[in-house]
Amino acid sequence: MKGASEVLDPGLAPEGHRKIDWAARHSPVLNRVRDRYLKDGTFEGLGVGVALPIEAKTAYLTVVLAEAGARVAVASPGPFFVQDDVAAALAERGVAVYASSRNPPEEADRPLERVLDFALDGREAVLIDDRAGLGRLAHTTRRNLLPRVRGASEETTSGVAKFRAMEAEGALEFPAIAANDARCKYLFDNRYGTGQSTLTALMHSTNQMVGGKRVVVLGYGWCGKGIARYAAGLGARVFVCEVDPVRGLEAYADGFDVLPALEAAELGEVFVTATGSRDVLREEHFERMRDGAILANAGGVDVEIDVAGLRDASSEVREVRRNVEEFSVSGGRRLYLVGRGMVVNLTAGDGHPVEIMDLTFSVQALCARRLAREHRSMHLGVHLLPEEIDEEVARIKLQTVGMSVDSLTPEQERFLTTWRE
Amino acid sequence: MKGASEVLDPGLAPEGHRKIDWAARHSPVLNRVRDRYLKDGTFEGLGVGVALPIEAKTAYLTVVLAEAGARVAVASPGPFFVQDDVAAALAERGVAVYASSRNPPEEADRPLERVLDFALDGREAVLIDDRAGLGRLAHTTRRNLLPRVRGASEETTSGVAKFRAMEAEGALEFPAIAANDARCKYLFDNRYGTGQSTLTALMHSTNQMVGGKRVVVLGYGWCGKGIARYAAGLGARVFVCEVDPVRGLEAYADGFDVLPALEAAELGEVFVTATGSRDVLREEHFERMRDGAILANAGGVDVEIDVAGLRDASSEVREVRRNVEEFSVSGGRRLYLVGRGMVVNLTAGDGHPVEIMDLTFSVQALCARRLAREHRSMHLGVHLLPEEIDEEVARIKLQTVGMSVDSLTPEQERFLTTWRE
Amino acid sequence: MKGASEVLDPGLAPEGHRKIDWAARHSPVLNRVRDRYLKDGTFEGLGVGVALPIEAKTAYLTVVLAEAGARVAVASPGPFFVQDDVAAALAERGVAVYASSRNPPEEADRPLERVLDFALDGREAVLIDDRAGLGRLAHTTRRNLLPRVRGASEETTSGVAKFRAMEAEGALEFPAIAANDARCKYLFDNRYGTGQSTLTALMHSTNQMVGGKRVVVLGYGWCGKGIARYAAGLGARVFVCEVDPVRGLEAYADGFDVLPALEAAELGEVFVTATGSRDVLREEHFERMRDGAILANAGGVDVEIDVAGLRDASSEVREVRRNVEEFSVSGGRRLYLVGRGMVVNLTAGDGHPVEIMDLTFSVQALCARRLAREHRSMHLGVHLLPEEIDEEVARIKLQTVGMSVDSLTPEQERFLTTWRE
Amino acid sequence: MKGASEVLDPGLAPEGHRKIDWAARHSPVLNRVRDRYLKDGTFEGLGVGVALPIEAKTAYLTVVLAEAGARVAVASPGPFFVQDDVAAALAERGVAVYASSRNPPEEADRPLERVLDFALDGREAVLIDDRAGLGRLAHTTRRNLLPRVRGASEETTSGVAKFRAMEAEGALEFPAIAANDARCKYLFDNRYGTGQSTLTALMHSTNQMVGGKRVVVLGYGWCGKGIARYAAGLGARVFVCEVDPVRGLEAYADGFDVLPALEAAELGEVFVTATGSRDVLREEHFERMRDGAILANAGGVDVEIDVAGLRDASSEVREVRRNVEEFSVSGGRRLYLVGRGMVVNLTAGDGHPVEIMDLTFSVQALCARRLAREHRSMHLGVHLLPEEIDEEVARIKLQTVGMSVDSLTPEQERFLTTWRE
Repeated sequence: MKGASEVLDPGLAPEGHRKIDWAARHSPVLNRVRDRYLKDGTFEGLGVGVALPIEAKTAYLTVVLAEAGARVAVASPGPFFVQDDVAAALAERGVAVYASSRNPPEEADRPLERVLDFALDGREAVLIDDRAGLGRLAHTTRRNLLPRVRGASEETTSGVAKFRAMEAEGALEFPAIAANDARCKYLFDNRYGTGQSTLTALMHSTNQMVGGKRVVVLGYGWCGKGIARYAAGLGARVFVCEVDPVRGLEAYADGFDVLPALEAAELGEVFVTATGSRDVLREEHFERMRDGAILANAGGVDVEIDVAGLRDASSEVREVRRNVEEFSVSGGRRLYLVGRGMVVNLTAGDGHPVEIMDLTFSVQALCARRLAREHRSMHLGVHLLPEEIDEEVARIKLQTVGMSVDSLTPEQERFLTTWRE
Repeated sequence: MKGASEVLDPGLAPEGHRKIDWAARHSPVLNRVRDRYLKDGTFEGLGVGVALPIEAKTAYLTVVLAEAGARVAVASPGPFFVQDDVAAALAERGVAVYASSRNPPEEADRPLERVLDFALDGREAVLIDDRAGLGRLAHTTRRNLLPRVRGASEETTSGVAKFRAMEAEGALEFPAIAANDARCKYLFDNRYGTGQSTLTALMHSTNQMVGGKRVVVLGYGWCGKGIARYAAGLGARVFVCEVDPVRGLEAYADGFDVLPALEAAELGEVFVTATGSRDVLREEHFERMRDGAILANAGGVDVEIDVAGLRDASSEVREVRRNVEEFSVSGGRRLYLVGRGMVVNLTAGDGHPVEIMDLTFSVQALCARRLAREHRSMHLGVHLLPEEIDEEVARIKLQTVGMSVDSLTPEQERFLTTWRE
Repeated sequence: MKGASEVLDPGLAPEGHRKIDWAARHSPVLNRVRDRYLKDGTFEGLGVGVALPIEAKTAYLTVVLAEAGARVAVASPGPFFVQDDVAAALAERGVAVYASSRNPPEEADRPLERVLDFALDGREAVLIDDRAGLGRLAHTTRRNLLPRVRGASEETTSGVAKFRAMEAEGALEFPAIAANDARCKYLFDNRYGTGQSTLTALMHSTNQMVGGKRVVVLGYGWCGKGIARYAAGLGARVFVCEVDPVRGLEAYADGFDVLPALEAAELGEVFVTATGSRDVLREEHFERMRDGAILANAGGVDVEIDVAGLRDASSEVREVRRNVEEFSVSGGRRLYLVGRGMVVNLTAGDGHPVEIMDLTFSVQALCARRLAREHRSMHLGVHLLPEEIDEEVARIKLQTVGMSVDSLTPEQERFLTTWRE
Repeated sequence: MKGASEVLDPGLAPEGHRKIDWAARHSPVLNRVRDRYLKDGTFEGLGVGVALPIEAKTAYLTVVLAEAGARVAVASPGPFFVQDDVAAALAERGVAVYASSRNPPEEADRPLERVLDFALDGREAVLIDDRAGLGRLAHTTRRNLLPRVRGASEETTSGVAKFRAMEAEGALEFPAIAANDARCKYLFDNRYGTGQSTLTALMHSTNQMVGGKRVVVLGYGWCGKGIARYAAGLGARVFVCEVDPVRGLEAYADGFDVLPALEAAELGEVFVTATGSRDVLREEHFERMRDGAILANAGGVDVEIDVAGLRDASSEVREVRRNVEEFSVSGGRRLYLVGRGMVVNLTAGDGHPVEIMDLTFSVQALCARRLAREHRSMHLGVHLLPEEIDEEVARIKLQTVGMSVDSLTPEQERFLTTWRE
């Protein structure tokens, strides 16, 4: 798709190929899913529109789909999630890529629209979506293409919330699968993937110690749980802010302090947001923070930290290490923002570990396949991946690591389904 | 209810009162729920039939309900879950008790029938059930009382499965609330309550070290997760057996080995079942176990370990420490069963920590109240506790430990429910 | 030694034998040490005076020594560390026992003097000591016996401190081995033995949850480290008080809060002392504690908590659960003391796990043997166990659990001992 | 020292200054040590020769010493530990730097000799050494300068071993302080510094998940303990290889498998060496490793992994990710070496966290000061840092994080030093 693609510098392709090869080699589950399920012609000639950060693992998913016969177009939900070498390599592997790290952020919708235009150009397509970006455009600026969309599979918690909001309004015009809500997705990707890669990005970017640090985790959903757990595993003292009291109680039983964000603001040395909400850290929090506090966002939306407000409140902003900006605020205090307030494991790292994305993208490939084959019988709402597909992915993964589970005996099956003794 | 009750030795009451007082003092959540919700007359003159182990915390729940005006009758799901001093004290506190540790196990249904007879004697009643014991009898040997049952609230995972089986068969004739499935229940009681108390019982009964031990956890549901986590927290090397591959994969990502039970049988030094299924450890496993292996059940049914089969396979059985039986099996090996194969934290300990039951029984009291008040509008199936009640319990608990959560701002609420940007 | 012994009730012997048998069965290291080292005649006719808590594992050590030919006499450092059934059984196994749980605490020296009288009655002896009790008496009230003492092996950190104080004063008249300072002792016994058994005793005695609790550990030596680690492993929020800033810093890096005891007094829900010092918790701390606070001592001296002062400050004292006393203090607050302020894992539990004592007593047996054989060449000071004996014990233990270590190659040996490249 | 220095590219200085500024800002302990101790004229005109990796934190130590009046020269123990931008910046800050990442590895001694030449040029000097590199040369190729060396302070475990070997041979001609053996050094730097930064480097370089991985740690000294602990904290299954059985037993009690390296070779997915020995992983291990195994060294010597042997055994070697080399070995297997087999946190990362080095370099500065002032009274052997200096560093650090310790009361002091009761 060299002709169709728009990338920053095609000359970067060799390094991109090397990265994609590494991902391919470490994706045994997706490779087995491909061999077992994707070669049945389902994707032959079908459009696939993809919105995902452009790095090696997402690239490999699109390559697998293209090799299965699909006409794949891909863009990033924003320019900060683009590795230009990978984009260049992808263009050489038969995928239409619209992605450059230099694209203006305010025009983030443009490449997504290009994806829709390509994928749905005279053919039907399924969408693999991130934060409902493609879905939103298909229902607004590209309504003309909407009839040819067989469905969308959504990657993120916040995107699923958007699709559910559309469904609640009666606005959703194709079936959507909450790929995010597959157990093989959120138990691993959201929790341990986010947990490990967020901490790696923070440690790598700041060269600071985790042990003994007061780390404030805002949001104790799956992402927050993973961050808190690994931070504690590295010796941090963890504080949790939540709006859901049961989750708050869970954090308490896990050994963490649970307190309002305004109080946490005065205590924390590191703050990580993972709520899916907006302005979770805002002026009233910045005002209370200690000199030297470190801020990062690990959640699915870019406005969890009010970066614009922070900038307004600062007398000076400068980059003091790669991916670390220093904001000089009132009282001579300096706050440090890692990764621009966008998902830090992508803007200041290589994203989730490859084994995690191998699981996630196996789920995504099977969601896309399901939509492609069964969209006609699916109602116009948000669907879960059927349990047996979830289990199949887990079973393959366990095989690849040399582990396995038992089966119920007939006596046990009977025991579990009868109530008379 | 001294007249109505049947206990082993009324003279044991003083020690029982002391235990109940300790539980009362450490139940701030239930006390606040009582003050806020239970004094509205709902329970005035209403029957309440309770099947729960007879120890201090369950006793205190029945006392609270009796003080709210209910006519409460209580029995244990079996004689091994009865502390006779607590039973004696309860009888002095206005609760009808049918419980003795000397009752013949094969007649375990008798006391439960007595509970139904008392609670439904000329009045309507709600049931607080354990493993669906009261529910089963109300649908079989006590069908005559069935019309006066407003509903049942079920405490255990396995009991909920029974009620769901009844619903699936169309046999369920009153609404049931899966109290077990309230988040304030299973996240804490099943997981951390079972986790801590199972390990305490094992350590206390065997005087053995956990650090370094190969501990096999069978079942990675909420109970198994708690046991595995705390065992690892005490230094054990944990192995997990599962039938659900996604749970198996979760155990793997948590750092545990996942393998079939037959293989685990050869490796383990300690085996703990928590599956809700039967014969999870059976002859083929016993045959492979090492000399000195320790076995215990932490799950909701008493047949997870095939104790009868183990007994048949043994040349000699003797008690070598309190609550520890030694089975001499083939090859000169000796296997050690703690707590008779029944829920070990009750048969060889004091059950869950008091703070855990404070949460659980707050949920139970509110489930019972809901059934009492709204049974007419509830369909004849299994219900969940409404989310707001769950959250209320969590909020009260957080207050009692000096913690609190945030609220969403209106902007955040709006952000979370819209899909257009 | 039935004739020589003084125990509470000889009729309790059967239960005591059962306990000792369990310990014997779970002492593979000591059994192998016995077979390999103790049958060489060293102990034939030699006196051995032992001061140790009287429970199954200590009992088994004395049995092993008696079977090796020694004339063994044993007493407890105080009446609260005596299990009368074990004492009765020991008397039937050829050991002279002076121990009863009913002995008056203020006459705790008497049984120890009896031990010296018996063990040194016309023969030489080695001592196995606890808190330097036998050593102190041999240098004061029993100086007449002193010339026949070949040496003493000391079990506790605080006892080693006493022997070092004696050495520093020039008062020590026989060689002492700091068995406590053998790596196979303190790394496991002091740390993990104390850690596990202290938490088991607390959980069993109070039926309280550890998860979420604010647990204050006073002293971050080996004992404190073990308690803190396992408490955190069970979900507690741990606070540490120390006098050594490097240890304090270590606790900080381990993720704990480090603060003065007066501040901790206001925060803690559970307090555990493990300092080896006196009055670590005293009136000024009691005054600040919250209603409901739980106190226990896990350290080697009985005066870490000023129990006498606490009693004076209380309007009422009563036992509210077995081994739990409630002290009603100012402001309507109630403080709960577990295990009388003495070593809680012994006064409210069965002491260290058996596998731990198997290691410790293997060290002790080899220390006693070394003193018996080489006392003439040892200076009158405090000695460490030679490294090769320490390693031998560890090697045997690893064998019993199916593990093993490597050896250095000759090239590696050379590499590690040369400085020229 | 622009004139004196030899760096790769002076134009890189701006980025280097930025990094050093970050380190300076995050070194509160060293800054306080400087203000309190280093301004007393001790270093005025004194030579200081430093061998340390050239990155921001080490750079800042040399800047502090230069500002205290010392004539500082610095080189790296090898070209792979040089960040050229930092070297360039240092040269602009008054330090003589002999360091370039392009220096030929086989001539690694040359820059070190230059350091000695500069630091001892007509003046006396103290040395801050890494792996005894400067010390070795001062005793061999630069014996002429030896009389002017006041002493050396050694940073690493393996360097201390070298100095002890020199002392044992009677070859050591100046006093050496084992800075490495200060508690404020090894408890934090070796353990948690190495632990965190090794795992960060591995995760960042490989983009692989730690959770579930079988991580083999070779060596369970302080470095190995830190790596094992944090790997487990991130969900790994940890295996330990050791030659010391007591350390092996400690690893076992910590919950890890302990096994010979040849057996571990067949199991591991990731191997990390931290022994200070040579050829810990060599041909016989490579032969047994699985396809895809990852290898890294975190120990103080570069020959723990026999990289030369691995290269010989490979049909192809290529870089597949930054800092990751793929070795194609027999049977179609591919092994991945991270960071060239040299200390991986330096060759594939930014070294230890800044707060760790703040502690370590405070110790180093005080060691250097002690040698400078008291060398005449110190015997020609290996010395420990006096305990009060260690405690002072810890006390300052605790202050900077808002924590503090208690003091003993006079009664407690007395209690701890008397043996009569």
